Amino acid sequence: MSNSKDAVRKVLDQVKADNRTSLTAPEGKLVCDAYGIPVPKEGVARSAGEAGKMASAMGFPVVMKIVSPDILHKTEAGGVIVGLKTAEDAEKAYETILGNARKYKSDAKIEGVQVQQMLAGGTEVIVGSITDGSFGKLVAFGLGGVLVEVLKDITFRLAPATREDALSMLDGIQAHEILKGVRGGEPVNRNALADVIVKVSQLVTDFPEIVELDLNPVFATAKDAIAADVRIVVDFAYVPKPKPRPTEEIVAAMSRIMQPKGVAVIGASAEDGKIGNSVMKNLVNGGYKGEIYPIHPKAPEILGYKAYKSVKDVPGVIDTAVFAIPAKFVAGALVECGEKKIPGAVLIPSGFAEAGAPELQAEIVEIGKKYDIRLMGPNIYGFYYTPANLCATFCTAYDVKGHAALSSQSGGIGMAIIGFSRSAKMGVSAIVGLGNKSDIDEDDLLAFFEQDPNTNLIAQHCEDLKDGRAFAEAAKRVSKKKPVVVLKAGRTSAGAKAASSHTGALAGNDKIYEDVLAQSGVIRARSLRQLLEFARGVPVLPTPKGENVLIITGAGGSGVLLSDSCVDNGLSLMSMPPDLDAAFRKFIPPFGAAGNPVDITGGEPPITYVNTVKLGLSDERIHSLILGYWHTIVTPPMVFARNMVEVKKEMEAKGFVKPIVASLAGDVEVEEAAEYLYQNGIPAYAYSTELPVEVLGAKYKWARGAGLL
Amino acid sequence: MSNSKDAVRKVLDQVKADNRTSLTAPEGKLVCDAYGIPVPKEGVARSAGEAGKMASAMGFPVVMKIVSPDILHKTEAGGVIVGLKTAEDAEKAYETILGNARKYKSDAKIEGVQVQQMLAGGTEVIVGSITDGSFGKLVAFGLGGVLVEVLKDITFRLAPATREDALSMLDGIQAHEILKGVRGGEPVNRNALADVIVKVSQLVTDFPEIVELDLNPVFATAKDAIAADVRIVVDFAYVPKPKPRPTEEIVAAMSRIMQPKGVAVIGASAEDGKIGNSVMKNLVNGGYKGEIYPIHPKAPEILGYKAYKSVKDVPGVIDTAVFAIPAKFVAGALVECGEKKIPGAVLIPSGFAEAGAPELQAEIVEIGKKYDIRLMGPNIYGFYYTPANLCATFCTAYDVKGHAALSSQSGGIGMAIIGFSRSAKMGVSAIVGLGNKSDIDEDDLLAFFEQDPNTNLIAQHCEDLKDGRAFAEAAKRVSKKKPVVVLKAGRTSAGAKAASSHTGALAGNDKIYEDVLAQSGVIRARSLRQLLEFARGVPVLPTPKGENVLIITGAGGSGVLLSDSCVDNGLSLMSMPPDLDAAFRKFIPPFGAAGNPVDITGGEPPITYVNTVKLGLSDERIHSLILGYWHTIVTPPMVFARNMVEVKKEMEAKGFVKPIVASLAGDVEVEEAAEYLYQNGIPAYAYSTELPVEVLGAKYKWARGAGLL
Repeated sequence: MSNSKDAVRKVLDQVKADNRTSLTAPEGKLVCDAYGIPVPKEGVARSAGEAGKMASAMGFPVVMKIVSPDILHKTEAGGVIVGLKTAEDAEKAYETILGNARKYKSDAKIEGVQVQQMLAGGTEVIVGSITDGSFGKLVAFGLGGVLVEVLKDITFRLAPATREDALSMLDGIQAHEILKGVRGGEPVNRNALADVIVKVSQLVTDFPEIVELDLNPVFATAKDAIAADVRIVVDFAYVPKPKPRPTEEIVAAMSRIMQPKGVAVIGASAEDGKIGNSVMKNLVNGGYKGEIYPIHPKAPEILGYKAYKSVKDVPGVIDTAVFAIPAKFVAGALVECGEKKIPGAVLIPSGFAEAGAPELQAEIVEIGKKYDIRLMGPNIYGFYYTPANLCATFCTAYDVKGHAALSSQSGGIGMAIIGFSRSAKMGVSAIVGLGNKSDIDEDDLLAFFEQDPNTNLIAQHCEDLKDGRAFAEAAKRVSKKKPVVVLKAGRTSAGAKAASSHTGALAGNDKIYEDVLAQSGVIRARSLRQLLEFARGVPVLPTPKGENVLIITGAGGSGVLLSDSCVDNGLSLMSMPPDLDAAFRKFIPPFGAAGNPVDITGGEPPITYVNTVKLGLSDERIHSLILGYWHTIVTPPMVFARNMVEVKKEMEAKGFVKPIVASLAGDVEVEEAAEYLYQNGIPAYAYSTELPVEVLGAKYKWARGAGLL
Repeated sequence: MSNSKDAVRKVLDQVKADNRTSLTAPEGKLVCDAYGIPVPKEGVARSAGEAGKMASAMGFPVVMKIVSPDILHKTEAGGVIVGLKTAEDAEKAYETILGNARKYKSDAKIEGVQVQQMLAGGTEVIVGSITDGSFGKLVAFGLGGVLVEVLKDITFRLAPATREDALSMLDGIQAHEILKGVRGGEPVNRNALADVIVKVSQLVTDFPEIVELDLNPVFATAKDAIAADVRIVVDFAYVPKPKPRPTEEIVAAMSRIMQPKGVAVIGASAEDGKIGNSVMKNLVNGGYKGEIYPIHPKAPEILGYKAYKSVKDVPGVIDTAVFAIPAKFVAGALVECGEKKIPGAVLIPSGFAEAGAPELQAEIVEIGKKYDIRLMGPNIYGFYYTPANLCATFCTAYDVKGHAALSSQSGGIGMAIIGFSRSAKMGVSAIVGLGNKSDIDEDDLLAFFEQDPNTNLIAQHCEDLKDGRAFAEAAKRVSKKKPVVVLKAGRTSAGAKAASSHTGALAGNDKIYEDVLAQSGVIRARSLRQLLEFARGVPVLPTPKGENVLIITGAGGSGVLLSDSCVDNGLSLMSMPPDLDAAFRKFIPPFGAAGNPVDITGGEPPITYVNTVKLGLSDERIHSLILGYWHTIVTPPMVFARNMVEVKKEMEAKGFVKPIVASLAGDVEVEEAAEYLYQNGIPAYAYSTELPVEVLGAKYKWARGAGLL
């Protein structure tokens, strides 16, 4: 590859020397040649025989053109013949062209006849690359032609892309069927096309100054994939983002911040209603067992804790400094934190970049860098880390422990997380406000929670990603171990506009987020409620061992809606083998329907649910169960719920561990039953056939991304 | 048109006489000509001059072909010349073709030279018609070409289609931008294209035996739209569905059934747990004030009501007979109902078509027809009509009165409706089970609830529509007055499969449902929860007077997510005029963001919400408000809620009536606030930025469909 790089470097040096921002077509061809990206073959023949041989070697059809510095209008001179299909034709054409040229200008200096492969047929596709502000180098793939331009049917991956990434791109467009050959068309050579994608992605990675690249069209046939046209735009001033911090370094700092030996509250107050008072109370009432140091210019003690004028006066170790002072005083106090060697500052105050004061924010970022203090915020509610009983926030103390770690860019969303998690008894390991993300951002949290034994799922709300590439790389690693759920706000153009007025962040093209998040194994939530429900439900479910989903329902109508939801959520309804069908039929009334859904019918007693669910759990061909319950007098809601939990436990004891979700149709008593089921490992929803299936679908998405399926 | 019809009739008669199922190309052309559907112009010239004139009249380019019974291989004979672009060329071509023909076969009988318009350029589209089992004649429109075949980008309307329908089809495909001209392409002539659609739809309406028709491709240009190829398939055995009953007749019968003077319970029982016992209790405990007649072979009285051996023994009028006896006894009892002239039978029993006994169902349908008894069910839970305190069901008595009328094809879904409506304090006018729909179906309910003063919204769950056309026609009429919400289960192929195993109903192509429901002004719910939330929320909102939606939020993060939801739900975020922007800025802190969303920021007191919402309600340019609340100590949830309800009332008193919805982010107290807001006319949701916007979006969809916007 080193020769290849040299060749490209030489071309780019010339472009730079010429002060140009784009490459000429021949330069583009040289670059493609250097990286083995196929372009039409060509050569200059100096005899009829040579023309024939050359054409045969290239493959037909070919086009032939006079090469002469004295003939500018080749076509007018009869110097171009297209569509030559045999060696004989090429030989004849050579003579014809030469004859025509001599007739046209008898004294023309003739260097030969160019023989060039003609591209036609096959499927026109586009392979390209763009440079995104957040994600950096991306490779793109789409179909050529006006329709795709209108339908915006294009897919992106981070560059460099692996062969697997590239192949996934071929299936990642809406119109992917085209590539398989339709209406008698040949399928394209997937490997050849993937090869072009991989090479383009490597090229732009090796040469970051290539900020845009278009191969458009690429003719993809059953045989090969050849780029008919190359456009390359360069920006020699482009500087890629610096590499993110090493993971160990992030974890070391975050561990101290999240599990501090001592917490300072800068701006602690004894006065009710003040933020510095709320933070103090939350630390105390939350049950935090480490040292609490109120910092106050005058007070000798606050809420019974000895107060200090400065963090520098505190005798013990401080790991976390929570700021509850106006923006203009933050920088000064932060310097003192640096001198005290405090590793983390939780910057609750607003009044920085979000409020038109970017210079204030730049100042604290500089101080953070200088003293190696990690900054959370500014403009946040603070954070909770329940394993340490730590409520470093001015919101209410939160006490329901669990294993989901959530974060939000926005304070409002943070409050919604708190309310939902309390109401749904979700339990969390952490809730973190990221606000302006002047320093600590989503990838820092990913690194910490990846190794945090108290966390088994990470759910994040964000409006932008400062460094999408660093996030994607962290998420790809972390999601192999723990589900990562992301609600990306500002998905739509209207949402993105609101996002920029909110945080000054330029929201990226949503399709890029969509594809890169998927490439990174992230489960993308489509709504706030989904983020919350996924955070709650996904960790409850065991990992499925396969794709076969079975619906067992008392209500046929629920079965239909649950089936709809399965398709909506990318789940595969198992096609029922005859022996299993017969086995289910033994338990259900003759007018019930086996198959999938198994419709046990509404009038059945609890034992029918029990028998069919037992069978569903014990048969190894079935990997997940969706239950549709119908409230009847014969099987009341809590009877159903208790029976299901018993069956689940009994079968688990026998080694049959499978995800089960439930949809409950009935009168209000089903709400209690749903809660009982949920608390016992069966995500269950009243009056909804879609929510349970969405949660199961999210679990599957994660398991697939993590390579567990 | 009568001449046109005669011409088509003549063609079809010949096809029938020949026992064919499709038309030849010339026959297809005759049919198109009769209905004014443009096909390529053609004629036979008998001189060079005539050829030139003919070609000039048609427009260029033209193709010319020898017409001779003695020359079969025209091309071989040099008898075809394509791409002629001037009158001169056409004249020359005439002579050339004649010369060639004579050379080829000197004694050939030559009738002349055919001059035919050549179609090329423009956009290739498809106009067609299919005959659907439920909807009957449909007209279809899509783009031609392989991509669209793959993407299934096609749209349907009921035939006959109006010009407005036809124009809406041009915007109803995904790739509709193409028709407007992209990359320098000309826009198509929308009127010409709509004209073709309207004519095709009229043709298949006039001749129902045309069961399939394809104009593929139609070349659509800036000038015209010409069908290059016509394919027509006929089925002379096809019989359209009979016209539905007249609306007055439906309403007369349904009114007696829903508001009966007397109800008979056939199979009434004193024994707890029996269906006939539950029905009796529900009638009594539900507070029904009319006569209750238990029917029982032996018992003298049941639950204190005098019992009769047969309905025929009852002295008074019976309007509704509720059946709670096994399937096999239903027919006999139904005959007695007929003899007693009872207008409606509520057939709770199962064991009919759904259980493999279609003959039993056919038998009762025949009896119903013979005696003019309308049949509800069989295989249902019964129905509730709260204005009459009527619980004609074996489920629990339901007592929360309101103005939404819901129905379900499935019993399970019916129970979910009951549970949700009780839990959410939704209140209903009716809940109706339709089950096997042997007779009464969704359009009967539409007709009744249309004129029912107690109902202001109709929400229906269905798996199929027996007569989609009758439903669509009723829905189109009714939705002009009251919102009609439909959850069509079996949307997806997996769902549709479950639907057929459930009711034996063949689920239609979902795209047809999608388009026809939209054409009929129906709000389509995408999930069970959405059906319920729309039923609850849409009637609460006043009808908006315009499309301008404004978001006012305390949480910037909620603002972004609410904006996303607006786009997802087809709502237009008003672009903020400078004067209004300035007016809002007066109320919000300097670091807040005006524009849309108006971000008042999190720390603001109640008065900021009050001032901005007042302004939002009073400015006539704003038509709807979406509120994003952020729980803070300064403005606690119930303070916010009470303030908003007060502002709403105050402004309503001044004549400012606008839809308001709210998203509440905060700790669990927001749940109480959401309920308070909802009960006071502001649909509000805790922990969700999508649900309130979905409800507002549904209101807008209805208002647009009803022509109120």
